Amino acid sequence: MDFGSDNAAGVHPGVLAALADVAGPAARAYDSDRWSEALDGAFSDLFGTACRVFAVPSGTAANGLSLAALVPPWGGIWCETNAHVEVDEAGAVGFFTHGASLLHVAGRHGKLTVDALREAAARRRGDVHQVQPAALTLTQATESGTVYAPAEVAALGDWAKRHGLGVHMDGARFANAVAHLGCHPGDVTWRAGVDILSFGFIKNGGLSAEAVVAFSADVAQTLPVRRKRAGMMPSKGRFAAAQLLALLTDGRWLSNARAANAGARRIAAAVPVRLLHPCEANELFVRLAPAERAALRARGFDFYDWELDGPEAARFVVRWDQTADAIDALVAALAGLP
Amino acid sequence: MDFGSDNAAGVHPGVLAALADVAGPAARAYDSDRWSEALDGAFSDLFGTACRVFAVPSGTAANGLSLAALVPPWGGIWCETNAHVEVDEAGAVGFFTHGASLLHVAGRHGKLTVDALREAAARRRGDVHQVQPAALTLTQATESGTVYAPAEVAALGDWAKRHGLGVHMDGARFANAVAHLGCHPGDVTWRAGVDILSFGFIKNGGLSAEAVVAFSADVAQTLPVRRKRAGMMPSKGRFAAAQLLALLTDGRWLSNARAANAGARRIAAAVPVRLLHPCEANELFVRLAPAERAALRARGFDFYDWELDGPEAARFVVRWDQTADAIDALVAALAGLP
Amino acid sequence: MDFGSDNAAGVHPGVLAALADVAGPAARAYDSDRWSEALDGAFSDLFGTACRVFAVPSGTAANGLSLAALVPPWGGIWCETNAHVEVDEAGAVGFFTHGASLLHVAGRHGKLTVDALREAAARRRGDVHQVQPAALTLTQATESGTVYAPAEVAALGDWAKRHGLGVHMDGARFANAVAHLGCHPGDVTWRAGVDILSFGFIKNGGLSAEAVVAFSADVAQTLPVRRKRAGMMPSKGRFAAAQLLALLTDGRWLSNARAANAGARRIAAAVPVRLLHPCEANELFVRLAPAERAALRARGFDFYDWELDGPEAARFVVRWDQTADAIDALVAALAGLP
Amino acid sequence: MDFGSDNAAGVHPGVLAALADVAGPAARAYDSDRWSEALDGAFSDLFGTACRVFAVPSGTAANGLSLAALVPPWGGIWCETNAHVEVDEAGAVGFFTHGASLLHVAGRHGKLTVDALREAAARRRGDVHQVQPAALTLTQATESGTVYAPAEVAALGDWAKRHGLGVHMDGARFANAVAHLGCHPGDVTWRAGVDILSFGFIKNGGLSAEAVVAFSADVAQTLPVRRKRAGMMPSKGRFAAAQLLALLTDGRWLSNARAANAGARRIAAAVPVRLLHPCEANELFVRLAPAERAALRARGFDFYDWELDGPEAARFVVRWDQTADAIDALVAALAGLP
Repeated sequence: MDFGSDNAAGVHPGVLAALADVAGPAARAYDSDRWSEALDGAFSDLFGTACRVFAVPSGTAANGLSLAALVPPWGGIWCETNAHVEVDEAGAVGFFTHGASLLHVAGRHGKLTVDALREAAARRRGDVHQVQPAALTLTQATESGTVYAPAEVAALGDWAKRHGLGVHMDGARFANAVAHLGCHPGDVTWRAGVDILSFGFIKNGGLSAEAVVAFSADVAQTLPVRRKRAGMMPSKGRFAAAQLLALLTDGRWLSNARAANAGARRIAAAVPVRLLHPCEANELFVRLAPAERAALRARGFDFYDWELDGPEAARFVVRWDQTADAIDALVAALAGLP
Repeated sequence: MDFGSDNAAGVHPGVLAALADVAGPAARAYDSDRWSEALDGAFSDLFGTACRVFAVPSGTAANGLSLAALVPPWGGIWCETNAHVEVDEAGAVGFFTHGASLLHVAGRHGKLTVDALREAAARRRGDVHQVQPAALTLTQATESGTVYAPAEVAALGDWAKRHGLGVHMDGARFANAVAHLGCHPGDVTWRAGVDILSFGFIKNGGLSAEAVVAFSADVAQTLPVRRKRAGMMPSKGRFAAAQLLALLTDGRWLSNARAANAGARRIAAAVPVRLLHPCEANELFVRLAPAERAALRARGFDFYDWELDGPEAARFVVRWDQTADAIDALVAALAGLP
Repeated sequence: MDFGSDNAAGVHPGVLAALADVAGPAARAYDSDRWSEALDGAFSDLFGTACRVFAVPSGTAANGLSLAALVPPWGGIWCETNAHVEVDEAGAVGFFTHGASLLHVAGRHGKLTVDALREAAARRRGDVHQVQPAALTLTQATESGTVYAPAEVAALGDWAKRHGLGVHMDGARFANAVAHLGCHPGDVTWRAGVDILSFGFIKNGGLSAEAVVAFSADVAQTLPVRRKRAGMMPSKGRFAAAQLLALLTDGRWLSNARAANAGARRIAAAVPVRLLHPCEANELFVRLAPAERAALRARGFDFYDWELDGPEAARFVVRWDQTADAIDALVAALAGLP
Repeated sequence: MDFGSDNAAGVHPGVLAALADVAGPAARAYDSDRWSEALDGAFSDLFGTACRVFAVPSGTAANGLSLAALVPPWGGIWCETNAHVEVDEAGAVGFFTHGASLLHVAGRHGKLTVDALREAAARRRGDVHQVQPAALTLTQATESGTVYAPAEVAALGDWAKRHGLGVHMDGARFANAVAHLGCHPGDVTWRAGVDILSFGFIKNGGLSAEAVVAFSADVAQTLPVRRKRAGMMPSKGRFAAAQLLALLTDGRWLSNARAANAGARRIAAAVPVRLLHPCEANELFVRLAPAERAALRARGFDFYDWELDGPEAARFVVRWDQTADAIDALVAALAGLP
């Protein structure tokens, strides 16, 4: 009963079927196949605006390339203190941008606010002796399992634009955020000032492809050669494209995310007073004493201690393919804690 | 009847089956699954020495990471003038190494020789004002479709070691080379002085994973964090590992390559006097006048003009899954040229 | 009456004389002249240990090169939150290291403590998904005008070594620190675990050269080529070397610093209750209301508002060549504030 | 009697006087002093167009920063095979540009031609898999001691512009070239399509400052922060500025160069049949047998063997401050060779 990570999820059968469908010989190489060529259109339809889409092999790659498209090597990138780009990517942003700096701002339940950014920005002089702020990166859903509402993204996007900053969204769990909000995916992206999105699929039923979605030709301009130079332009691009297209088909990306969110909500409802953050997507952060954690693990539940939220914090992630039995068992186990 | 590129090849059924086998949920993430953990052992068995193996998403990535493991940012890398790293990777070596330089040496039929390297090295002063040569990269099979014999690799490896250089092999078509030589894969790698190998699988029946094979712990030391930082450590690593393992199973990597080589040999036998290079792997470089090329294309054959070998050069690549019919047709068409 | 910055200081007459002495023709280029060749010996004598010394054109260059000698591109560098490398160098550390990250720890009066570092280090997992801490950088004297005692440096150095970290000291005002401590310069550097020092001369009577002092051949190993590649190996190296040698001659570096420190102490004594940090070197941080600052400026005093220490903070820097008259005037003006 | 390098030259007395003039205290730091602020105007006057000028500490730095202003990290830079950026800068271009590649074209007597560039460019495909040519760099005077005429630069500049390339001139010996041509400095720079110039002063009477001269605000745009981040913005900028201004004063830059050129011409006249390249600036490349070289050295002449021009080549450089006696002696010695 593994609640450790949605990276442990399985692959959606529709994805496997799509791979088999395109596995035959004589497709054209390097994104010249018809599946790769269909990507821009499919995502443009989804978002309701013209997009340029680049399949990449990981979320770290998506974030690194996206931010490199927005900032120069001497740029600064406003991010939440515990953002994935800061905590979990081994300095990939520095690699892809040739040395840009992450500028930390503490959020509330993982969410940045205009007030906090304004205050942090006021402490910078901005002269030639300093790193030059060039972008804002938001995580949606956040690393605390919360979700920015469209108006929140728009306020941040507006602040960023007024300061000449590009806006990136780390959407490793973008599907979970949209499933929670019930909004149009454009409402929390390009309509709210987001320039480029790391759209996650791997945790949500995919196999090995994430999508970088650029909402303007300008932002996308350097990405083809950046991606090639980073060794991320697949020679058999159809296999990446087919995965993404399969998850867009029939709204699978959204139904998978809804399933995961619903599981998380059921668990959250069992431990309302223990929640460290509102449970809005597919992650729960729960206050559990060491003995309680040990008891749960003894009964076969896997999950992470979460030091970033303090010594009593534990994180549970619900996968799109988590069984009802496992969820029921966890609900019962949590409810049964003294 | 596509002879344009082995990147247009299909995926071996064994690879698809392996992906389906590992597609279920609850595997551990980030190379902690048992398939990823089996990689080192499987390649160590194959090569007859302890290896460290890293799955990466492209040959460009494999070359970039491998060379970054060998050279500092101010390093120089001896390579053949038309090596893939120079001609077809958009400067990826500069990206992964933080600015190292490729040092060109003209080969003979794509193969470097100790004499040519010695002469080029003699023209460098080697003081602090110059790029510092730090590695030699060989391509096996070469970009001209030829294959280094074990003794040739060993001579180059020996020269490199005496000059303090690391040795990398770009083995995008390593399987084709080994199939041609009929030797043990160790004979043209670690036993001949190769420190690290980009072992290609994607052109040869794979889907989206190549292998970086490091033949010592020292050479491998920085690769885990370099790979993570480059966004190439897959969260669902089992899907990359399963592909590689499936192609090692039952010697598929070798039988696929043999099939491709045999097809190329059949075609070569039809046009012996037109060959620009010996046909030793799965590529042919053929002298064809413009009208001849047009005639072949009119009959449905796809292939590339190959300016690097002059205005009359054309390249044909035979895939592992090329049909006998297509090969027969090409043989007949070439034989029928006036 | 400029108390804005010691970068506004003049050049010591002995430096100008030295430049004139070496200005004649036919010296050997690129550090092969006898003045450049004397650097290692002169600093080795000063520090009482074998050093390798590299003249560079700025403190930012000295810090960037020094840290690049200690950390890989994926490394992390512990630093005080308001360290010069973080606040005032436009991301130079990212440039010279190819993307390493600064890891911030809040100090007390600008000084890091082992406790604060230990606590911050405990919040990092250290796995391959994270930036890998590789160095500690200390500023001596600090950006708050305070000075680490030898035992404080030694405790930090010891902690760093036990964690496998290299230790760098940003000594833009190293002379002021040694002048304050009255210790041997080795006591706060190599004897206390410092591996490499940015030894500042420009603020302290120099013209255009700082010194990177490496306390072991290992640490120095990559610096010759890093410095050349960064465009910092001067073709007429004798002019940089002569400056440094001139300031080592007759202990000028130390007497200049003593003069500056003494001036600062006199001013500090006039406003003991307004001091935001102990005044230990040549900088004072003073609480002054806006009207008070305006009054001082109206009387001809130049100084900076210092937002990093809050809205009522002002910084005064005393130069080595500050006149007694200017200091007297400032003492009187401060004493005369209501 | 040192003819090894103009880097061994002395400093013009006017430069030393200027340094003394600005050595007093209380100048403003970081290019806010009035000498630094005068640079743009002085060079704009000289070139007859609005320039932005940045003092840097070496020619390698000037070239690296200039090219970084013109090309992205994935860019290619056309250069002559033996250009200083390729042969003598330890990969600095890779460092400053974050990995751009030098694309070699063999010149004639060190000079590139449109024909050679056109032919080399025709061999590149230009797709996303290749390094993207982004600039052309010319050396004036060349590494072979020859000089591009205004029409030659203009033809190259025109070709570059038609291919969307920026144009850089490595003018380490720009003064010698202008002295030879007798033209307006604008005629071989901005009027001929040059976007940015490394204008050398150190070999020509300066001490430690070269000038990057950008001929448009667009090209200059990123240079302030690039220069700061590279540790090349001097805190006491007046000392760099004063050197440059002193050499512009009274046309010293040009009279120094004329003196050096005249000396070289006198020597060339003594050995017309031995010259490997036309002697147009202050360098001579002379065919000398080993015994002849030994004989000259035995008589006290210093010069370099010049392998780049073959085993019998020697290089003599005449400095601006070379004595008539030394030149006479060399003329006699060369004339006296059997």
